[in-house]
Amino acid sequence: ENILEAKPVVYRQITVPQNGTKEYSTDSGLVVPSISFELHKRLLAAAESHGLSLERRLEMTGVCASQMALTLLGGPNRLTPKNVHQRPTVALLCGPHVQGAQGISCGRHLANHEVEVILFLPNFVKMLEAITSELALFGKTGGKLVSNVKDLPETPVDLVINCLDSHENGFLRDQPWYKAAADWANQNRAPVLSIDPPVSGQAHAVEAKWSLSLGLPLPLSEGAGRVYLCDIGIPRQVFQEVGIKYHSPFGCKFVIPLHSE
Amino acid sequence: ENILEAKPVVYRQITVPQNGTKEYSTDSGLVVPSISFELHKRLLAAAESHGLSLERRLEMTGVCASQMALTLLGGPNRLTPKNVHQRPTVALLCGPHVQGAQGISCGRHLANHEVEVILFLPNFVKMLEAITSELALFGKTGGKLVSNVKDLPETPVDLVINCLDSHENGFLRDQPWYKAAADWANQNRAPVLSIDPPVSGQAHAVEAKWSLSLGLPLPLSEGAGRVYLCDIGIPRQVFQEVGIKYHSPFGCKFVIPLHSE
Repeated sequence: ENILEAKPVVYRQITVPQNGTKEYSTDSGLVVPSISFELHKRLLAAAESHGLSLERRLEMTGVCASQMALTLLGGPNRLTPKNVHQRPTVALLCGPHVQGAQGISCGRHLANHEVEVILFLPNFVKMLEAITSELALFGKTGGKLVSNVKDLPETPVDLVINCLDSHENGFLRDQPWYKAAADWANQNRAPVLSIDPPVSGQAHAVEAKWSLSLGLPLPLSEGAGRVYLCDIGIPRQVFQEVGIKYHSPFGCKFVIPLHSE
Repeated sequence: ENILEAKPVVYRQITVPQNGTKEYSTDSGLVVPSISFELHKRLLAAAESHGLSLERRLEMTGVCASQMALTLLGGPNRLTPKNVHQRPTVALLCGPHVQGAQGISCGRHLANHEVEVILFLPNFVKMLEAITSELALFGKTGGKLVSNVKDLPETPVDLVINCLDSHENGFLRDQPWYKAAADWANQNRAPVLSIDPPVSGQAHAVEAKWSLSLGLPLPLSEGAGRVYLCDIGIPRQVFQEVGIKYHSPFGCKFVIPLHSE
């Protein structure tokens, strides 16, 4: 008698050099370990060295983050041709760094999908090239750009997207524009989606309902809300180069929810 | 007595300079006119002049086309951790042009999602830069690259993705590698998805079950199968610059089916 046995399902398909403080799991039970910011930085650098440029990453992050935001806004029920006179409003808060550029890319794709986008970005004399190029494209959407928190809506918006923080410049939090934007977000009653939030020693300046991590999650604290993971197109062998054994946890999706153990 | 009247829904939200021979409509009845290849080319050139580089477009097209392909392969039912030993197989046929590069980008994202990808690309001494950079990234996925049709599978694959044609070099069809690849596709019993197919005067060398057009559709013939439209991130004012009045027909989606009138 022949019995074909199904091979057992392996739930630990991603292993990292140092086991972090925190592990997550997907809906189907796959284990997704967190990695340190340092290792995450090395992963992105390795990807860039093979041609997965910042520009490509900005585009893909913008597409996938906007897909998540469109779902949070109500998806097909909210965005139909019949609802064209009740377009959802998103306030997008960006700092002057790569995280801000990721936000602006997301904002362009949302505005392209007929979402009313108001982008807050503080005025600086010299801007990162990534910011400048994203702004040029965003400027073609008809979305609104403000550099003063006073010009943000006083009534609740449908969604706040928070890209105020970078991973390395904690001192930004002491700047007046940062404090003003964080205060505005906390006063507006809209739920907050944080894109690529840093690991925070202190309490979060803005409490998020959802956070979207890129590639692999950092060990985020409670203030990050529900954690989602975004595919950013890095091939398996690039993970390998920085010591990560990797199989995609995404299935057919590009953004998936993660659960804390 | 106050009666609030809903504004009527406008179904013709996109208008083009010359009305083409063919119009499509979305599921919700919005009219999507086709445009000529010349106008499509000017639209992409305008987008590039504002910083929506070929590199960005390759990345976004690859993501959205792979999302469509993953759905065609069975979506969440087919791609679960439990099915890891029965991964779907995709044969990707690419020519040495931008359309081929778009295909390779799609192939990388599919391979990243644990799809078994076999990429056919003919050997040329000198390759387009877009092809070279996509190949370098694809090479990191573990996907297979073949330059001879004899190395393509003899048994039916789950899906064939056809990127053999470019819009301008019709003469490619007379080359031995093209004919061999087209013959292989027609003999393999797998359904065919064509990405960015050209308007064809002659019969299609490979009959497609589905075709994915980028940005706005060309007036495709019957051999293109069911036509889908892919968002490629172009802002409204860029459409305007080439004389197209544009509102997004995508709703919350990035790939939508189109219907012929």
